[in-house]
Amino acid sequence: MNITKPTLILDEVKCKANIAFMTEKANRHNIELRPHFKTHQSLEIGRWFKDAGVSKITVSSLDMAEYFAIEWNNITVAFPVNILEIDTINTLARKVTLNVLVESVDTAEFLMKHLKHSINFLIKLNIGNGRTGLLPSNTKTIDNILAVTKNSELLTFIGFLGHAGQTYKCRNKSEILNVHDTAKAAILAVKNQYQNQYPNLIVSYGDTPSCSVTEDFEGIDEIRPGNFAFYDVMQVQIGACTYNDVAVAMACPIVSIHKDRGEMIVYGGGIHFSKDRIEDNGIAIFGRVAQNTATSWKNIIPNMYVRALSQEHGVVSLPDHEISNYTIGNIIYVLPVHSCMTADLMKHYKTTDDKEITMMATY
Amino acid sequence: MNITKPTLILDEVKCKANIAFMTEKANRHNIELRPHFKTHQSLEIGRWFKDAGVSKITVSSLDMAEYFAIEWNNITVAFPVNILEIDTINTLARKVTLNVLVESVDTAEFLMKHLKHSINFLIKLNIGNGRTGLLPSNTKTIDNILAVTKNSELLTFIGFLGHAGQTYKCRNKSEILNVHDTAKAAILAVKNQYQNQYPNLIVSYGDTPSCSVTEDFEGIDEIRPGNFAFYDVMQVQIGACTYNDVAVAMACPIVSIHKDRGEMIVYGGGIHFSKDRIEDNGIAIFGRVAQNTATSWKNIIPNMYVRALSQEHGVVSLPDHEISNYTIGNIIYVLPVHSCMTADLMKHYKTTDDKEITMMATY
Repeated sequence: MNITKPTLILDEVKCKANIAFMTEKANRHNIELRPHFKTHQSLEIGRWFKDAGVSKITVSSLDMAEYFAIEWNNITVAFPVNILEIDTINTLARKVTLNVLVESVDTAEFLMKHLKHSINFLIKLNIGNGRTGLLPSNTKTIDNILAVTKNSELLTFIGFLGHAGQTYKCRNKSEILNVHDTAKAAILAVKNQYQNQYPNLIVSYGDTPSCSVTEDFEGIDEIRPGNFAFYDVMQVQIGACTYNDVAVAMACPIVSIHKDRGEMIVYGGGIHFSKDRIEDNGIAIFGRVAQNTATSWKNIIPNMYVRALSQEHGVVSLPDHEISNYTIGNIIYVLPVHSCMTADLMKHYKTTDDKEITMMATY
Repeated sequence: MNITKPTLILDEVKCKANIAFMTEKANRHNIELRPHFKTHQSLEIGRWFKDAGVSKITVSSLDMAEYFAIEWNNITVAFPVNILEIDTINTLARKVTLNVLVESVDTAEFLMKHLKHSINFLIKLNIGNGRTGLLPSNTKTIDNILAVTKNSELLTFIGFLGHAGQTYKCRNKSEILNVHDTAKAAILAVKNQYQNQYPNLIVSYGDTPSCSVTEDFEGIDEIRPGNFAFYDVMQVQIGACTYNDVAVAMACPIVSIHKDRGEMIVYGGGIHFSKDRIEDNGIAIFGRVAQNTATSWKNIIPNMYVRALSQEHGVVSLPDHEISNYTIGNIIYVLPVHSCMTADLMKHYKTTDDKEITMMATY
């Protein structure tokens, strides 16, 4: 494999195993897996999901929906409707089954007025994450949205959607399971309140940590994890996976070695990794280094990590006994802290068997 | 101006004023301004520098050097030589005056062996930043590099280069000036040691904070600030500029308003801004919001800022008395924390007078 600059390497076997793990789990629980494709943003990787039986997807922008509409016909845009993009919504609505998120009467009324083709909507609930969505207790606004849209021919209510993003603060499985129990109970309480009125309503739920570790999906109709396809250092810290599950690594050339301070400089910076970081015992970590194999990587090297990133530089800290193994021009493999952001920056993958995989271009 | 999604707006008047400020300062001190183009990554904005009399530039990668080599013929790549890209170095060396950074004998020897056309090199010194480069006291390695390259016909030593990036930890002008004094003294000491041997050697120095505030360039031959063309929230915090100097802002559509908690959700996340942040009294800030004008922005709104970013969501915190001024579908202008990273992500600009400006594509 000819690598000369920072290159995002994808282990196809690991990625397909991650996809198989989640599809099998969804099948076993008889729930729909609607994976979030913002993680990989690739039609080709999308086909690996299709091969595993997936037929509906989630994306995070209308741009991404347009890209995937080439090969997918049931798409949920898991982001509050941006009414300024009504033209794109109408274009997409003509082509595919489009599901959007509504969390205000204003947005519902705007859609009623400007839609030209039918779409579905879910009401976004804030089930503990605190980012956006209506509080489950805010039945007044839920009722108002439902009243406004009740007789619409183009805007159909199909259920409630929640994202328990607070699992990202967990540090082991039992913490994830606790958060999951509370978040699931919150969304199911709302489902119960409205189920008589809307017998077909669904509950769409799920983030990678909770879907990775729980076996309790009772009452949930659909899950939308995305990151699990690749996983990353952050998911290991959360307790959602092991290093062995991480399916992407950045290959970075070594450009300088500082033996005196136990550090190396690699070509690979914030414009490649993104500046996401975890804190580990008070130390900021921007990536962990894994052992090289001929064409891929294996185990994490203890105490070897990216301690700082500037635009193009990565500063790698490593133990003294490790440093003599490296010379300038070697490649090291760095597992990213947040694989979604890293993939978004890199815009393409090289597989461990040297195949190029393209992604959606930005804009 | 028709804005429907996150758009990086460039105030051409402010940007040109920033360029004029720095070129005037360099002229007044009779030093070369070799601006760092990693900030804007745009041939068109590069021409604004050319119009101001600039003829030599700095970039942070060989990819960027290739892009700018279309219109510039003297380029310094301010990053330790990545020997794996020797083919690109040779291609560029044939076309332009290429200056690279060497900080090890290994790299010098590699270049001696593989260069096909002549290039210049500067020895990178660590003048307090601690990222990379040789310590000024490491004259042994400096001497070894100079000994190895002494009789080379293709690899010519032209001087020392330092980047006092530790100014980024400063919080006012006098702190910047103190750091500058120490860093400048460190690099000039090395210059003095080698000047007899190499009477034409230059000292290339400079980061945006120190070049913005100092009037003491005694002994320095060349400065390489880059960020000053745009400035950003981080530079204001450092003490290098005022909010009024910031020449870029992200226009972001409001998609949700949470009156109960004094927050709004905008379309504009980590894939638009990058996740760079500042800490202000213990609060993490990912961008500050400025007042809208018809086509641009003016003053910062006190206590209104981006408090969190996920992939596409920005969470904006704002005072209670401010929130009733906004409705879903409005555009707000957010000054980025780190304009270089934001520009790198956005890949193009729209000027306040509605002109599109393109940038280098990634790869």
